[in-house]
Amino acid sequence: MSDDHQSPTAAAVQRSYRNTLSVIDFAERNLAAAEQEGLMALYAKPSKDRSVFLPTVSHDRKVIDFVRCSYLGLDNHPRILEGAVQAVRQHNALHWSCARTRLNFGFLGELEEALSDLFAARVITYTTVLAANMGALPLLASGHLTENKRPTIVFDRLAHATLAFHKPVAACETQVETIAHNDLNTLEDICRRNDRVAYVCDGAYSMGGSAPIADLLTLQDRYGLFLYIDDAHGISLFGTSGEGFARSQLGPNLGERTIIAASLGKGFGASGGLLMLGTSRQEQLFRRFSVAYAFSASLNLAAIGAAMASQSLHRTEELKFRQDALARRIIAFDRKVASEQAGSTLPIRTIEFGDENSAIRAARRILNKGFFTSVIFFPTIAKDKAGLRICVTASHTMEDIEGLSRAIREAREEQGSN
Amino acid sequence: MSDDHQSPTAAAVQRSYRNTLSVIDFAERNLAAAEQEGLMALYAKPSKDRSVFLPTVSHDRKVIDFVRCSYLGLDNHPRILEGAVQAVRQHNALHWSCARTRLNFGFLGELEEALSDLFAARVITYTTVLAANMGALPLLASGHLTENKRPTIVFDRLAHATLAFHKPVAACETQVETIAHNDLNTLEDICRRNDRVAYVCDGAYSMGGSAPIADLLTLQDRYGLFLYIDDAHGISLFGTSGEGFARSQLGPNLGERTIIAASLGKGFGASGGLLMLGTSRQEQLFRRFSVAYAFSASLNLAAIGAAMASQSLHRTEELKFRQDALARRIIAFDRKVASEQAGSTLPIRTIEFGDENSAIRAARRILNKGFFTSVIFFPTIAKDKAGLRICVTASHTMEDIEGLSRAIREAREEQGSN
Repeated sequence: MSDDHQSPTAAAVQRSYRNTLSVIDFAERNLAAAEQEGLMALYAKPSKDRSVFLPTVSHDRKVIDFVRCSYLGLDNHPRILEGAVQAVRQHNALHWSCARTRLNFGFLGELEEALSDLFAARVITYTTVLAANMGALPLLASGHLTENKRPTIVFDRLAHATLAFHKPVAACETQVETIAHNDLNTLEDICRRNDRVAYVCDGAYSMGGSAPIADLLTLQDRYGLFLYIDDAHGISLFGTSGEGFARSQLGPNLGERTIIAASLGKGFGASGGLLMLGTSRQEQLFRRFSVAYAFSASLNLAAIGAAMASQSLHRTEELKFRQDALARRIIAFDRKVASEQAGSTLPIRTIEFGDENSAIRAARRILNKGFFTSVIFFPTIAKDKAGLRICVTASHTMEDIEGLSRAIREAREEQGSN
Repeated sequence: MSDDHQSPTAAAVQRSYRNTLSVIDFAERNLAAAEQEGLMALYAKPSKDRSVFLPTVSHDRKVIDFVRCSYLGLDNHPRILEGAVQAVRQHNALHWSCARTRLNFGFLGELEEALSDLFAARVITYTTVLAANMGALPLLASGHLTENKRPTIVFDRLAHATLAFHKPVAACETQVETIAHNDLNTLEDICRRNDRVAYVCDGAYSMGGSAPIADLLTLQDRYGLFLYIDDAHGISLFGTSGEGFARSQLGPNLGERTIIAASLGKGFGASGGLLMLGTSRQEQLFRRFSVAYAFSASLNLAAIGAAMASQSLHRTEELKFRQDALARRIIAFDRKVASEQAGSTLPIRTIEFGDENSAIRAARRILNKGFFTSVIFFPTIAKDKAGLRICVTASHTMEDIEGLSRAIREAREEQGSN
């Protein structure tokens, strides 16, 4: 070990933020077992709606997928695919290799205007939510979003990995704290003790549950709390324009103290990520200084065309139709299977099976019956809370939901009889 | 300022790695001026080869672009565009919203096999080089790539922004140092004093110049130095398979101590990024634990189709034809315009104009004559070294090169007469 070479600073930061070595040593056994059982690292062919073809030795086997997060079933919508194809055809280009600070497809400017209008915010797109988050945190830490005063940045312990990753980077510029999931009492304490505070959390959490947006807005009113909300899993599912879980609970103006990150994939059905900003000064800062904007490339034209088609679909009655179809399927699932999230209008359910081996065995049994689910364990979730994640979507049939529910119940019974 | 709230650790790391606040305060004036002059944050329509249409009040104005990095002119190659379109059409999908640790397009597996074969390495693709780099640095810092012993990580001072960004993250796990550009004496000193050392650098640097690959390999032989080389700007330009500036200087096997990051855009002509790894154990680690792989999505199908078409083109004589065409254009440029990089076979040239205002004025004069160049200043390059960056490509005509050269000379003369 070269730990003796570490400066005290590095060693101290290491203890507080990360230890890739120990995470890997712990997690790898389970990942290998899940791969061995054919539950992870799969390669498949798309099929209709929520089904995919998994290759087997003898033939391609069709399974119903509850892993992908296309909650409204838009990811193979013909108009979105046609948007992708036509954008490439009409521009005779797919990708420009240059920073967005220099040169952009005009069509990307049109897309961002359309999205800004749709979501009533200043929207900047990114190739991924990962890239959007990476650009945002140093700007937040710098104080430029909070009257040039560096805020104390408070992370929810379950904030997405692509946010938590940057704690050491943020800690280079300001105080960083991590609090228990949705622990608003501690957050309020920190607000009382500090001049400027920014809270980094998910809107809809990727492993179920959500941020208490209304309570956070109360803290914002009371203490000027800055909110950075990654709503990748909430976009499109709520709001008359599909503005998402977080944005739909905010007023007509996002204001100066709230930024929402979201996906152009997932519920939105295209490809990429975005930020919703509240002021033109924020937009200017992000367009000049966010690292992915200044030192990486933009969405490719297929993604731009798909997103343009999807934002157009978001303005039709098809959006509400699909939001309602999703809601009915979530209710149908909850009637059949108990879960921590039962009753929530969000589409993610986790089913605990306890230890990792039990979870892997259950997922394998369920896959044998034709349903592909996500087996989840540390570091994705807490140790000893291993289980399954189910993503319900609007284009699962009621028979899919019924079949999965039965397979989960049978896996539970089989577990009990072991 | 909330600096008084900072822990000593955060304050110490801050001083060593970054200060977004002061970078922004310094750079913003120049960025605003360059935008005001219509040199940055432009939106344009693609035209044939290296020309783009810039919108003006009265009409769309065609200019020859030397900003984009499509060094072989492949980014609008009909076969690459057709690959993008057909991939979407044939799979009836553009994007799957799920982590690559779970489910992948089978076609992406085929692409990675083809690229592995082409570049004689284990290739993993990413949505961007930014995402590839972000995933790699914590794995490097963890020691899993260096016999489970954490290496001292040494960054070249000019390593790309998407690498330097993660110094604080790497410093959470191991000792991190930054040395002067290409300072191999200091690097060798560090190798002598430390058990395990990893060096992080660019192959072809984005602002001109390159890493001394042969000398680095000598240090690797002598001290077991691990090399992480971002060759985004070198890919496709060199080697019989277009394996790039760095890979073409290495042996038939990459070995256990070299990782190369590269672009699927730029010279390659498609969209995305990749890593070339030397061992199957490295591949397994990256496919299980790199953050973009486990917590973000894959290339979309248009990008996969484009890359598949481009790797196929890389196996034809068209590659050499385009590499040679690029070489002739670089020589032609060097005959006309003096630059620090004159004589190099790499396609990036920087022309110093001194202070930022002079550089902006020169770029504007050159744009008036129909040639779009990148005006560069801090933090992209060192303070008071402001100037222009020129990306020569294989599909610039000799007239384009001649016209740009004349415009640069005239801008120099006009500067002299001010």
